[in-house]
This record gives sequence, C-alpha cells and structure tokens, in this order.
Amino acid sequence: MALIVQKYGGTSVGSVERIAAVAQRVKDWRDRGNDLVVVVSAMSGETDRLIGLAKAIQPRPSPRELDVLLATGEQVTIALLSMALEHIGCPARSYTGGQVHILTDSAHNKARIRDIDGARMRADLEAGRVVVVAGFQGVDEHGNITTLGRGGSDTSAVAVAAALKADECQIYTDVDGVYTTDPRIEPRARKLDRITFEEMLEMASLGSKVLQIRSVEFAGKYKVPLRVLSSFQEGAGTLITFEEESVEQAVISGIAFNRDEAKLTALGVPDQPGVAQKILGPISDANIEVDMIIQNIAADEATTDFTFTVHRNDYARALEILRGTCDGLGARQVTGDDRIVKISLVGVGMRSHAGIAAKMFGALAREGINIRMISTSEIKISVVVDEKYLELGVRALHDAFELDQAR
Amino acid sequence: MALIVQKYGGTSVGSVERIAAVAQRVKDWRDRGNDLVVVVSAMSGETDRLIGLAKAIQPRPSPRELDVLLATGEQVTIALLSMALEHIGCPARSYTGGQVHILTDSAHNKARIRDIDGARMRADLEAGRVVVVAGFQGVDEHGNITTLGRGGSDTSAVAVAAALKADECQIYTDVDGVYTTDPRIEPRARKLDRITFEEMLEMASLGSKVLQIRSVEFAGKYKVPLRVLSSFQEGAGTLITFEEESVEQAVISGIAFNRDEAKLTALGVPDQPGVAQKILGPISDANIEVDMIIQNIAADEATTDFTFTVHRNDYARALEILRGTCDGLGARQVTGDDRIVKISLVGVGMRSHAGIAAKMFGALAREGINIRMISTSEIKISVVVDEKYLELGVRALHDAFELDQAR
Repeated sequence: MALIVQKYGGTSVGSVERIAAVAQRVKDWRDRGNDLVVVVSAMSGETDRLIGLAKAIQPRPSPRELDVLLATGEQVTIALLSMALEHIGCPARSYTGGQVHILTDSAHNKARIRDIDGARMRADLEAGRVVVVAGFQGVDEHGNITTLGRGGSDTSAVAVAAALKADECQIYTDVDGVYTTDPRIEPRARKLDRITFEEMLEMASLGSKVLQIRSVEFAGKYKVPLRVLSSFQEGAGTLITFEEESVEQAVISGIAFNRDEAKLTALGVPDQPGVAQKILGPISDANIEVDMIIQNIAADEATTDFTFTVHRNDYARALEILRGTCDGLGARQVTGDDRIVKISLVGVGMRSHAGIAAKMFGALAREGINIRMISTSEIKISVVVDEKYLELGVRALHDAFELDQAR
Repeated sequence: MALIVQKYGGTSVGSVERIAAVAQRVKDWRDRGNDLVVVVSAMSGETDRLIGLAKAIQPRPSPRELDVLLATGEQVTIALLSMALEHIGCPARSYTGGQVHILTDSAHNKARIRDIDGARMRADLEAGRVVVVAGFQGVDEHGNITTLGRGGSDTSAVAVAAALKADECQIYTDVDGVYTTDPRIEPRARKLDRITFEEMLEMASLGSKVLQIRSVEFAGKYKVPLRVLSSFQEGAGTLITFEEESVEQAVISGIAFNRDEAKLTALGVPDQPGVAQKILGPISDANIEVDMIIQNIAADEATTDFTFTVHRNDYARALEILRGTCDGLGARQVTGDDRIVKISLVGVGMRSHAGIAAKMFGALAREGINIRMISTSEIKISVVVDEKYLELGVRALHDAFELDQAR
C-alpha cells in the first residue's frame, strides 16, 4: 500500500472522454490498494482561451487579476475529474490550490511554493477518498490567488508529494519516458528506465522538455521519487532517482540539444579586471538570459576575446547592446552568429571516467563537424556547432557512446 | 459620498464589450464621489456551458463538485471586470466568494448565506479601490465552495450591501424597473418609481420575475434600500422601500399574473379533522409545491370540496397521486384543469381601503370573465380564471384601478 501522487497535463485531460480515461486509470491504481492524490492542469486550450479574453479587455492585464482568471482553468478540471471518479464508484474530492493551502510568495504569474498544509488531504485519504488538486495555483499569505507560471502543475505535484511524503510522484505526459535523445532525430534513441536527478536537470535545461526544470529541482531538494510516464500507453516510464541508489550507473545517459542558441563575441577587449561584468551587465539589465560564457586570452595577451550565447530571439537586441558596450571598452570588433546549436553529452558517470571529452570530440571530428565552442560541467560536456550539423552530431554521439544498447 | 453596491447579471457582462461598458458605468459612479462594490454573475451562457460539461461526464454530478465547477463562471467575470476597470484608470480588486468570507450553510447548489466579513472589502474601499465580488457563490464553514442557486447573485449583492451597511444596493437587469404589470400584455403599464418590499415580494412570487425573491426577503430583513434599474439605458429605475417611508402610498401598485398554474379538486371528501393533511401530505412528499389552497363545505355538509393549485408541469403527477389518496378517503370524484391562470392585485394600500375586492370582481364580471377560485392575503387578492382570459383580465384591472396614471 503506497501513497502515490499523479499529475496529468492539459492534453491528458483535454476532453470529457480523456478525463473519463484518466479517472479509470486512477481507479485502477487505487483498486490495487494505493492511496491516490491527483494533480491536474487546465484542459488543453483553456488557458489560451482565458488569456485571449483578458487581452481583448486589457492588452497588459494586471498580474493579480490574470491569476484570478487563469486559476479557473484548473478548477474546472478538478471538478470534472472528481465527477468522473465518482461516476465509476471511486469516492473523490476536489480542492483548489487555496483550499489545501498551497502557500506561495506574492509574485503573480510566476509564484514559488513556500509551504503546503497536508492535513486536509490526509483526512480525505484516511476516509478512503481520492484527492484531486488543482495544479499551477496557490495563494499568497494575504489569500490572493497566485499561479506558478506555465508548466507549474508539475511543481505543484512534486510539492504535494513532498508535503505528504508520498512514495512516488508520477508525471503523466504525452511521451512514455525520458529518452537517450530525441527519437525524431535518432530513431534508435532508447527509453531510459532510470536517470539521476542531476542528469535530468541537465537534460531538461538543455531542451529535453519532458519535465519543468523547477519541478525536478523541487523533487531533488525534497527527495521525492519522480516518474515520467505516458497518459496514453501502458509502461513503467522513467524513474528519476537519487544518485546513491544507482549502483551501476551508465557513463552517459543521454544527449540533449538546443536549437535556439545564438552566439556573440567581443574580439580584442582590453584584458582588465571586471571586464566580464562590464560586458554582461547591460545584457542582463535588458532581461536577456545568457547561457554559455567563454573567455579566451587572445593572441597579443593584452586583450581578450569574450564569447557568450543567448536565446536566438534575443540575438538582435543583444548584438546592439554589445556593440554599444564595446565602443566604450575599446574592443576591436564585435561578431555574432545565430545559426548555431548546442549539443550536450550528459551523464553522472563521466565524473569517474576519463576520456569522455576526447571520445566526444573525436566522434564529431570523424564526421567533419567543426566545434565552435566548448563548455563543461561535472556531469555534462556541451559543444556549439553550426546548426546544419545538429542531426548528424546527435546521431554520431548516440552511436559513439552506444546509447541504443540497454545496460 | 455614498457607499453603493451594484450587481450586474449575466447578460450585462455577456461579452468583452459589455464588460467594458459596465466598467465605464462603475467608473462614472465612482467619479461622482461614491465608494463602489460590484457584484457580478457569470457571463451569459457560461453556466450552461459548464453544466453541459458536467452532464457529459456524469448525468447526476455530485452537488459539491458541481459547485466547484460552476463557481469558476463568476471568477472569470470578476477578473475581467477588474482588468477593464484598471484599463480605464480605476483601481480595482477582485474577490471570490470565499476570499471575502461569504459564509453559507453546506447545502450545495442552493446554499444560504449566513455571514459576510466586510473587513477586507472595507480596507480596499479605504485605499480607493473598487471592489469586485463574485456573486452566486460562497464557502461553508469547512471551506468547501458553495453556490446559492440560479439568481443567487442578487442575494449576494444584497448580503454584501447589508454587511457593509451600504447606502443603496442597485440591481442592474435588462428591464428599467418594476412595472404596474407586464408591458407586453398592457402597453399602458407604467414604471413605478417606488414599491414597498412587501409588494415586491408579492409581485416577484407571482411571476414578475425582476428580482430573485430571496434577495428581496434578505433586503427587507436587513433593511437594505434596493433599486432595480437597467444596464442598457439611463434612468432611476424603481426603488424598493420600507413601508414606513412611503407616506402617500397608492392603493394598488400592480397586477401580477402566473401562467403556469393548474388546479385539482377532490369533490365530496368526508369532512373530518386532518383531511387537508391527508390530501396534501402525499403531494408534498412527491416534492410538488402547492400554491393556493381552498376548502369549501359541499352541498350535503357531511363532505367537503378541496381544491389546490400546482405548477402546470406537476399537474399529471399530482392528479395521479390525488386519485390514489381519494380512493382511500372515499371521495366522490377528482377533477382538474391545467388551462387556468392566476391574476393578482397587489398593494399595501388595500389594508386601509375597503371595497377593493368588490371593485376587482366587478371589473372582471363586466368583461364576462368567470372567476374559478379566489384567495386573499393582507396586501393581495388573487383570482384563478380560464387561461384564455389572462390578457383581457389584466387589462381590465389595470384600467379599473387607473394604474396608467402617475400618482
């Protein structure tokens, strides 16, 4: 008998028929003797419909009122799912974020969860009911309705699981688990049975958008066992584990990539203390997020070359800002390229295995792929290459590290 | 500087354009130096859409979950109206029923308001904000979402006005006030500037469906001055006053009618104590509401004739039940008629004026209208006539009591 928190996204509850299917799945889990808490998103399309209404009234609606509006989306789903559960003889009770005291800060539209009171949910579970909770929403300390931002329902589910000390938090999506890489690029990509939290964080932030990164962080922080699985097909999905549990860890877990990169370089910047801050300060003041940062000592050694990457949408603006900054700094030249992509090799095993980087660069070189930038962390190695090499590079690495082979 | 509570129904907020128009009207009132609290319904059609979703999942949805679902309708409106107010430079803040502690009993789908905490609304008013409150909904003592049943937003508005001791509660509808009778039947029907609560109660329950009867009762109980006026045209509407205020009261205020009546008679029932209870008990057990009740001593004086009216939809069922009861009681015969209507003369003035009934019956007799039943109360006289006489009867009475003349 386990306590399981399940989360179903908008597509999984996108119609009356799909809600009925989710109810049946929940009932099946319960009939096997488990206690169930179900966290749901708004029906797919509903959030966009509500935003459309708001924008028709006020192009820049107040964040507080937008949250009041958007929170109705999940409230509709919790009521309908509870009805569907009761319809098939499964006692259920629905709660809004406020009703189970999902306490957040007051940052409307992007609030962060501070605390959850599990008492009411526990009472229902003890009374034999399935508890259905609205994801994505909470209340601040003044009782104002808040939302966590897009994808926040994953975080709600993990937070509820943490508050209730659930045995597992299951995130149902439209994929059946986490893959070694995107199967649309490498058909031999293999579903992973397990992956560590750290690897999942790297995979998520690098573009394998299976789970919201905040929910993974949250799960890691509160040690909530997390499982990603499909709403539409049976299967055990992928379990996201704590490293200690994985005795035989594969060296490399997967290959992530990001198509939306653009790189900017300031050439011949006078090499003096504080130059990085002078270059990146104005970029971050403009709310542009910087991903990779690399500084090379240039040939003449009195100047440096400074390179960083940003989201492709921010490229033009970032270039303009950088040109302004470099004029003041006396840099020789500003260059940039928005036809690049990032490919990353992720795996906790690389900590204890030498030669991973060399093997990676060799595999790419054999295909004639020129590496434009390199950046490494403890469990990943990222390279920037011309965008035309994305598919070739991913397949070459997948092959070189034999990721299609189960271990 | 007055504190005014305004209520706008579903038609008044039925589109983005209409919500903008309501916002402008609210701002106009505020610009004249008033404090404003606005209570709104769901956008027209929204409640039916939500009920449709529920029924598609579960033909008889749980009342608790239906309330969770339906409450989203008003929540959407409060957010949109607040945005519209802020868009035109009018600071506003929206609240669900739960957020301003509209405490109700736990009778889901038809809850009754017990208490409202005005503190939060008062704080916003003092801060110069318009307060926008979701009508129709509240929370019970356990924090469960409840709804008051169709038309409950009127009651919400009156309850909020009572809690805040507002100077006036304005109910905006699609008519511009209360008329002496239905203008579709008598084109010379005149809008009343004022009417007493008692008269309004009789008018409302008799079919002049301008205001929900519960809201009028509530207003009378808490002495909330109530005004009915149009969302779509300017005008002072009709003020519903406490009797004491009306020094010069017209004898008759208006003529109400009800098309949906049907009458049933048990002829020759043995006249013994408890017979009324024996006849009406099974009717009320079947949840059929009885309107008029008349008992006549029949010719032979050992038996009685017993007549009552029900809603026309309940006629067939009531007839069947009555036949069963009368078999047991040894009544001579059961008859019925579902082609009847009720016409009522309403006016507090009739208390102190003799001869009203005689004048009423005379006016009907002059038109050859046969009266089938008569029932009287302190401030009304109702007659049942064949349905073909409805329009003729209403016009004859409107004319006889000169209701087209302003006083």
